[in-house]
Amino acid sequence: MADQYAHSGEDKRPTEIPAIRWEEPPEGPVLVLLDQTRLPAEEVELVCTDASALVEAIRSLAVRGAPLLGIAGAYGVALAAVRGFDVDEAAASLASARPTAVNLALGVRRAHSAHEAALAKGGDVRQAASAALAAARQLHREDAEASARMAEQGLALLDELLPGGGHRVLTHCNTGSLVSGGEGTAFAVALAAHRTGRLRRLWVDETRPLLQGARLTAYEAARAGMAYTLLTDNAAGSLFAAGEVDAVLIGADRITADGSVANKVGSYPLAVLARYHHVPFIVVAPVTTVDLETAEGASIEVEQRPGHEVTELVAPQVPVAGAAEAGGGIPVAPLGTQAYNPAFDVTPAELVTAIVTEEGVVSPVTAEALAEVCARSRRVTAG
Amino acid sequence: MADQYAHSGEDKRPTEIPAIRWEEPPEGPVLVLLDQTRLPAEEVELVCTDASALVEAIRSLAVRGAPLLGIAGAYGVALAAVRGFDVDEAAASLASARPTAVNLALGVRRAHSAHEAALAKGGDVRQAASAALAAARQLHREDAEASARMAEQGLALLDELLPGGGHRVLTHCNTGSLVSGGEGTAFAVALAAHRTGRLRRLWVDETRPLLQGARLTAYEAARAGMAYTLLTDNAAGSLFAAGEVDAVLIGADRITADGSVANKVGSYPLAVLARYHHVPFIVVAPVTTVDLETAEGASIEVEQRPGHEVTELVAPQVPVAGAAEAGGGIPVAPLGTQAYNPAFDVTPAELVTAIVTEEGVVSPVTAEALAEVCARSRRVTAG
Repeated sequence: MADQYAHSGEDKRPTEIPAIRWEEPPEGPVLVLLDQTRLPAEEVELVCTDASALVEAIRSLAVRGAPLLGIAGAYGVALAAVRGFDVDEAAASLASARPTAVNLALGVRRAHSAHEAALAKGGDVRQAASAALAAARQLHREDAEASARMAEQGLALLDELLPGGGHRVLTHCNTGSLVSGGEGTAFAVALAAHRTGRLRRLWVDETRPLLQGARLTAYEAARAGMAYTLLTDNAAGSLFAAGEVDAVLIGADRITADGSVANKVGSYPLAVLARYHHVPFIVVAPVTTVDLETAEGASIEVEQRPGHEVTELVAPQVPVAGAAEAGGGIPVAPLGTQAYNPAFDVTPAELVTAIVTEEGVVSPVTAEALAEVCARSRRVTAG
Repeated sequence: MADQYAHSGEDKRPTEIPAIRWEEPPEGPVLVLLDQTRLPAEEVELVCTDASALVEAIRSLAVRGAPLLGIAGAYGVALAAVRGFDVDEAAASLASARPTAVNLALGVRRAHSAHEAALAKGGDVRQAASAALAAARQLHREDAEASARMAEQGLALLDELLPGGGHRVLTHCNTGSLVSGGEGTAFAVALAAHRTGRLRRLWVDETRPLLQGARLTAYEAARAGMAYTLLTDNAAGSLFAAGEVDAVLIGADRITADGSVANKVGSYPLAVLARYHHVPFIVVAPVTTVDLETAEGASIEVEQRPGHEVTELVAPQVPVAGAAEAGGGIPVAPLGTQAYNPAFDVTPAELVTAIVTEEGVVSPVTAEALAEVCARSRRVTAG
């Protein structure tokens, strides 16, 4: 079940509203999400008391973004365990709530494994639930630390590729603190450049159909006091042609063993434009995004989302959850219009200048270099 | 002054509503426009009784598209003349209603010149007005004929480039009967392919920010019974990568002497994608679109449109004219967000496979070949 907290904005600074938090009020533990479908118009929190509410929040994109989905999935398993629901069932439904995001399944598995291990060691249900929650919290913490390290490494890479500062960075979709336990992936790099006075301009793609750039990245950029400008996705070509883009920074939903990058639809055209204009195309993502078990980009199952996201306009004030079921937006195309609406596209490694992870920068992007960075991460985890 | 005709749809087939028509009811001649900002939700006609109403209709995009703007401009001059307004003033305000469209200024000049010539030959005000109206009607007729010839030549080119039929054509913005005295430019070619059974699929870019693809091209495709699919502009990359696009067909707002093509923003990224994927990129435009006095693409003044077209959503039912003044849409970005909103982009000749005109196909696109086609047109006009 999901409830709502509304924020008056009087008692806390708006920047303090985190994308996700675990709370333990007297009536029982809850997972509190900032409803991202209502931004930037309203700051409303969704309060989930069970896994099915969280599944719905994931499907409706109230919570989204690869790293945050992993954290949410782990907390979702903990929530089911702590509240005495069927943990296996919760884990299965959470893991399959969205097909492309590998982090979601990983986060779910991590809390689920901790739960199973505690039971296997003879722990009782309460101890197992505590283990699941500890695993979720640990993942949350690790993700915040990974953000900070990606920002540091990404900024060093920008300085290397573009000496002299004054960076004009183009980004797509939303990759900031709304998708992360910390400050995000690509956005965290831009933010680090901003804080050190090296960011001249952040170009923000609006990111159709769900406008995560207009609604969320612009919201985060405005709060951080960054110099940013919004554009329709198709206007990026004009910026490249005018020499106004020094680098593209994007996140990733999944990176396959060959270095192919699945990310929000519209990333691949930017990669082709960047190549044509000799502009670095940089992917920023934690190593958990790398899926070494999938050999190549062509094997990625790309989620096809409902056509009404394209054929209808949904204002951010209108809850998208309801709209996702029945349409419910304002039609902009003739009734009966069929839409092609892939959630992601796949950029091959040869178009990616570098992949920035918390364990280091992979450039040039090869299967070997990617595997090496992942191995480094495993050594750290094992150690 | 503009008034409205509402269509019940009972007494005439909806396909019979033309984009523009001259009428002479008892209360005086009027120019009737199908208000394209209300499509596809409503078929409402705007009735203009003076040039300033037409200027407003042009600015608000109620009437739009390069060839149709030329026809509208010519009729606008005739309207001022017939109704006894200041013709020079009307011509000046019409010609500058939108900066990039060369056809608009050309259409205005044609009717204006006819008017002046009639006066210079000693005609009275009424004869001069008749001459202006005759010039507008002639332009209207010529444009319809040009559409038919472009469709024929474009189809022959498709057959040559893609033997075997089953064409999957990607188009951007709206280039059909809503922008033309006939069946349009790029859309007319797709329609000809459809009628002869050679069109497998028309991929329709929604065309942000004003969604002319979703609202207008989908409307025209649906009426013509074509197999069409709508997509966000940024999803075109996925279609190219999947090998689902056999050719790109677009129109043009202006073609400079070197073969650079100014067209709706988003055309240039398609040209880069088409090149990267070895797909023909074909521009279909009447020779009136060619501006031999502008040497190169870099000299084109690209119209920057208001930021609120990007930062706010405006549903087609809401009259855009009012919205254009004050914003008035639903904000999708934080208040105060600055937007980069060029109306057009410029594609250099080296990315254009062919330019299809009513006088012949220019391919490869060179300044010489383009000048030759224009000269052919002048010979015809002179003869």
